[in-house]
Amino acid sequence: MTVQELEGYHGQVLQQLRKSKAKIGSIIRLKSKSGEVFEGTLIPRSEYSDQTHIVLKMKNGYNIGISLDRTEKLDVVGQGEKPHFTKPSPPANRVGLPRVAIVSTGGTIASRVDYRTGAVQPALTAADLASVVPELSVIAEIDTHILFSEYSENIGPTHWKGMAEEVARKIADGAEGVVISHGTDTLHYTAAALSFALANLPVPVLLVGAQRSSDRPSSDAASNLTGAVALAARADMALVGVAMHQNLSDHIILAHRGTRVRKCHTSRRDAFKSINSTPIASYDLKTGHIEMTNGIPKRDKSRKLALKSRFDQHAYLIKFYPGFNTGITDSAVSAGTRGIVVEGTGLGHVSRHLFDSLKKALKQDLPIFMTSQTIWGRVDMNVYNTGRDLLNLGVTPLEDMLAETAVVKLMWVAAQTKSADKIREMMLHPIAGEMTSRTLVEAS
Amino acid sequence: MTVQELEGYHGQVLQQLRKSKAKIGSIIRLKSKSGEVFEGTLIPRSEYSDQTHIVLKMKNGYNIGISLDRTEKLDVVGQGEKPHFTKPSPPANRVGLPRVAIVSTGGTIASRVDYRTGAVQPALTAADLASVVPELSVIAEIDTHILFSEYSENIGPTHWKGMAEEVARKIADGAEGVVISHGTDTLHYTAAALSFALANLPVPVLLVGAQRSSDRPSSDAASNLTGAVALAARADMALVGVAMHQNLSDHIILAHRGTRVRKCHTSRRDAFKSINSTPIASYDLKTGHIEMTNGIPKRDKSRKLALKSRFDQHAYLIKFYPGFNTGITDSAVSAGTRGIVVEGTGLGHVSRHLFDSLKKALKQDLPIFMTSQTIWGRVDMNVYNTGRDLLNLGVTPLEDMLAETAVVKLMWVAAQTKSADKIREMMLHPIAGEMTSRTLVEAS
Repeated sequence: MTVQELEGYHGQVLQQLRKSKAKIGSIIRLKSKSGEVFEGTLIPRSEYSDQTHIVLKMKNGYNIGISLDRTEKLDVVGQGEKPHFTKPSPPANRVGLPRVAIVSTGGTIASRVDYRTGAVQPALTAADLASVVPELSVIAEIDTHILFSEYSENIGPTHWKGMAEEVARKIADGAEGVVISHGTDTLHYTAAALSFALANLPVPVLLVGAQRSSDRPSSDAASNLTGAVALAARADMALVGVAMHQNLSDHIILAHRGTRVRKCHTSRRDAFKSINSTPIASYDLKTGHIEMTNGIPKRDKSRKLALKSRFDQHAYLIKFYPGFNTGITDSAVSAGTRGIVVEGTGLGHVSRHLFDSLKKALKQDLPIFMTSQTIWGRVDMNVYNTGRDLLNLGVTPLEDMLAETAVVKLMWVAAQTKSADKIREMMLHPIAGEMTSRTLVEAS
Repeated sequence: MTVQELEGYHGQVLQQLRKSKAKIGSIIRLKSKSGEVFEGTLIPRSEYSDQTHIVLKMKNGYNIGISLDRTEKLDVVGQGEKPHFTKPSPPANRVGLPRVAIVSTGGTIASRVDYRTGAVQPALTAADLASVVPELSVIAEIDTHILFSEYSENIGPTHWKGMAEEVARKIADGAEGVVISHGTDTLHYTAAALSFALANLPVPVLLVGAQRSSDRPSSDAASNLTGAVALAARADMALVGVAMHQNLSDHIILAHRGTRVRKCHTSRRDAFKSINSTPIASYDLKTGHIEMTNGIPKRDKSRKLALKSRFDQHAYLIKFYPGFNTGITDSAVSAGTRGIVVEGTGLGHVSRHLFDSLKKALKQDLPIFMTSQTIWGRVDMNVYNTGRDLLNLGVTPLEDMLAETAVVKLMWVAAQTKSADKIREMMLHPIAGEMTSRTLVEAS
């Protein structure tokens, strides 16, 4: 038996598997010491795995790891098939349906569990995506394009530029809506970036991801994509949104405003939440019904897109915490830095121990913006002495803007102007629904 | 008319107020151009105020700012009284009630709007607190003590030590529960710190704050304090918790586990939420009924408190974002640093552009821990290549621990040992319910 036949297993576990004549792909029945019985296909482990667990892919699509210590009995009961995708023939596009462009950038929605390594790999093309969701063919005439294939944690300002430009091309080509498939880790940062880069949009742009890969029965890839394409094709709106599950059921796909959304759970399919605002639209997967929130910019194909796709990534996001080391802010005050977004506490505070470090930055005319790590709510630096002191130093409060949106906006604003004053001014001017200013009459 | 009589007003607003013979304390009736009428006491403005608003304290306790531009008519209709607190005589403590110590450290719960400046000032003593909430006298025999008076954004490791030691004294003195009043900004960081510093607690320790100051009709100070004292006096538990409103009504005060709670709104009274866990207890303000969650450590006055109050604040919390500047992590790799907590994306990722910077730190045997900025959920670095690469570099995933709790725990652990290996080991060993390890059988 070669090493490859039990790839990734070591030590005692390897010995036990050899003794049982198991190999990768074998169907294993395992009885634990507490009497539970698990049956599934033995899958390989990665090179970094611990040496104590046997990992089975269950019939329900989940992988399960069982410690050898707790294993009473292990038998090979058959040989499994490799999971595979049916390659469907592309559905004939119906005449007269709205044209929607799907741009693929990678991530779980475009990935599947790699049978060889047991890990999730970006693998599906945009065409695969469209073809594994036959429902799409009755919703829109789909045009697919792979822009790049990247885990979203690796996506940054350069990719945002590329995506914005690709969207502009698709719109110029006549798309009545654009869907971008994207990893979920930084989906909301990209959504904010495109919200600023794509002003005066004539049609909607929906970012969409998946929390579970598309070869898993629990995958949300197909339903999210269906919702995103339907909203891109038919919703009467023209802005950048994020389309994801409303809750754990397969019922409603919500669209969130690109500047007001945040990933709030590591793994749940309803991880994306609108913050300090309501979702902009919903799509009912059962009835196809679309509901819109009032006051959302509407489609207008005569509108001319204003593309401003440059970002200057010399912007910092810094989270304050008790015992905060001012070395962090000091390191930001270096050549080329265009501004700092602080995630303060509560209504927008930091310890007075940080004041000198902030003064140093402000003295160099480096704009400093305040947001809150509470995530929900609005900063208000007039309530407490600390806030007033910070205002007096020259810190600029960003109302109810998300910290994540703020740092993205800062990168975008910094690419428009060389002036620190202009940066401050533009940060306080709402561009894509990213903040609401206090009303004239303030109740505190 | 002296400047003090119209303190903080400038320019046109000052002129208008002089013309109307208004002074600070005057009762003003103001009609806006849109026809609304506001009546309230003219309050002074701070030195940093804009020059366009007149600020009135309304009868309902709210301050309101009305722009001069929108003001049609302004009349002085009377002279107001300064708001003041009735100094009640301390209620006679009933014999046989549980003894609860209230330790005051400052914050909104111990503050009121300063009539002179219009801002919130820490002002109330613990005795004031107890005396403005007469209900407390039928719940417990109260012993009050002002430890210090500090906005919580200024509270750090040194204060945590002082608080832990004060709690130990109160317990040694026979308190059957301890309540600490504290600003809400960093209340959850302090709650985590005390959870680690006060092991083997015989009685409960409840931190409590308020989102609205106690001279405001909407204040949650009295109800939160009542709930905290009742839980400290009577709940059958022995751990560090945070007692705050469940929702916007004055009905239920929840206790959250000190290591599992987070301020999630800048201003709402229900800002504190249990994350990745359920609240540990609830107190019904109407019926006095206490409900406990199963599995919470119970009171046992024979138990001997293990006080470990030292913290080493050379620990970093760093939040990753697209376009992250590695200068931030590099600045953390300096003499004295004991470890870094990274707030990664999703299941625990950062961009590969950060790998070299992390390698440099790990090469110097600096422990690096991974948490997620999604806040909810569990990191799992075995699912994607990025996570596996980071594990291979030597990054340590912290399961479902909050980033805020993680950096506090790191400061506490770093004070216990000089060894980086021991730091890593202790970080992964749950001490105060701060994390749950994956169960033996993992479903992914």
